[in-house]
Amino acid sequence: FLSATLFAETKTPADTAKPVHGEYIDWRLLAVSHREDKKTLRAILGNDTAIAAARKEQTKPWPDGSVLAKVVWKESTHPNWPQAIVPGEFASAEAMVKDGKKYANTGGWGFGHWEGGKLIMHEEAKAKECFACHMPMKDNDYVYTFNALK
Amino acid sequence: FLSATLFAETKTPADTAKPVHGEYIDWRLLAVSHREDKKTLRAILGNDTAIAAARKEQTKPWPDGSVLAKVVWKESTHPNWPQAIVPGEFASAEAMVKDGKKYANTGGWGFGHWEGGKLIMHEEAKAKECFACHMPMKDNDYVYTFNALK
Ligand code: HEC
Ligand code: HEC
Repeated sequence: FLSATLFAETKTPADTAKPVHGEYIDWRLLAVSHREDKKTLRAILGNDTAIAAARKEQTKPWPDGSVLAKVVWKESTHPNWPQAIVPGEFASAEAMVKDGKKYANTGGWGFGHWEGGKLIMHEEAKAKECFACHMPMKDNDYVYTFNALK
Repeated sequence: FLSATLFAETKTPADTAKPVHGEYIDWRLLAVSHREDKKTLRAILGNDTAIAAARKEQTKPWPDGSVLAKVVWKESTHPNWPQAIVPGEFASAEAMVKDGKKYANTGGWGFGHWEGGKLIMHEEAKAKECFACHMPMKDNDYVYTFNALK
């Protein structure tokens, strides 16, 4: 590790815009992911209902009121440690909201995203596009993420 | 995205051991990283003191009582979406604990790790090895991570 100590200077990332985040910034973590195809890093967070269900392994199905947030950043590299892929610019925050009745046509999940800190749900036509892509995970209640802090 | 809908079957990851986690499982997120050199995914979390300081951008230095956790998993790929690098087996949880007096010889930071859920601090000789590697970040109070949820 000694080579690291040879860097004379602490480098900091270029300043990026400071986005307005939604309530998910106070939620707890389910997992992280690196989508190498999309060159993005993600954190998947859950509200209290979702976290409680995940910890009890009662997610088939997830209980009504569960909300999952997928926070997405463009990938970047650490200015002082280029082997580390770290979050660059904030890209988006996507949502899945469980309500078995309201969203019965899309597996009990509403699909949406946070805009300027506000959660906006998609109309059903758009949600169906999201849902189609989550179909392979049918036997996991349409959720890709597995709790990494089990 | 239609090709994804062609998967007939929901695949789930191979069962891994269920580790005992420390208090960090309830902490909030600062950032995520993918160490391609070490083939690991990480989440960097902070206790309440650390998160409050990070949000106020008062981390030069971080206040006494701040604790940072780096949770490390071996990298794996999602069984139904192989372009996604996701957490595999839990590898370790490392800690940095701020106490300007107690840890004055290592930049005010104690270095340790969680073992079976318990935080164990390293002796000074070992902490100095950790500290040496964090030296390049001197002007950022020896911390590599930048808050991604700013
Ligand atoms: C091209 C396929 C595809 C489409 C389209 C898609 N998703 Fe996903 N989604 C995924 C995959 C794969 C993951 C898990 C890997 C990752 O990205 O972290 C995921 C994960 C998520 C998660 C985290 C919970 C989970 O299931 O793991 C949310 C929330 C989410 N997507 C919301 C949406 C929303 C909202 C839309 C539509 C606006 C959408 N998705 C459309 C493939 C897709
Ligand atoms: C080989 C260099 C190296 C050594 C040795 C090292 N670290 Fe780090 N550490 C890093 C880098 C680089 C990061 C940030 C990138 C990442 O891994 O997420 C980091 C991040 C951390 C973090 C998250 C906070 C931060 O600074 O970003 C903690 C906590 C941490 N290390 C603890 C330790 C402990 C405890 C030891 C010794 C047992 C140690 N480190 C030794 C290079 C090192």
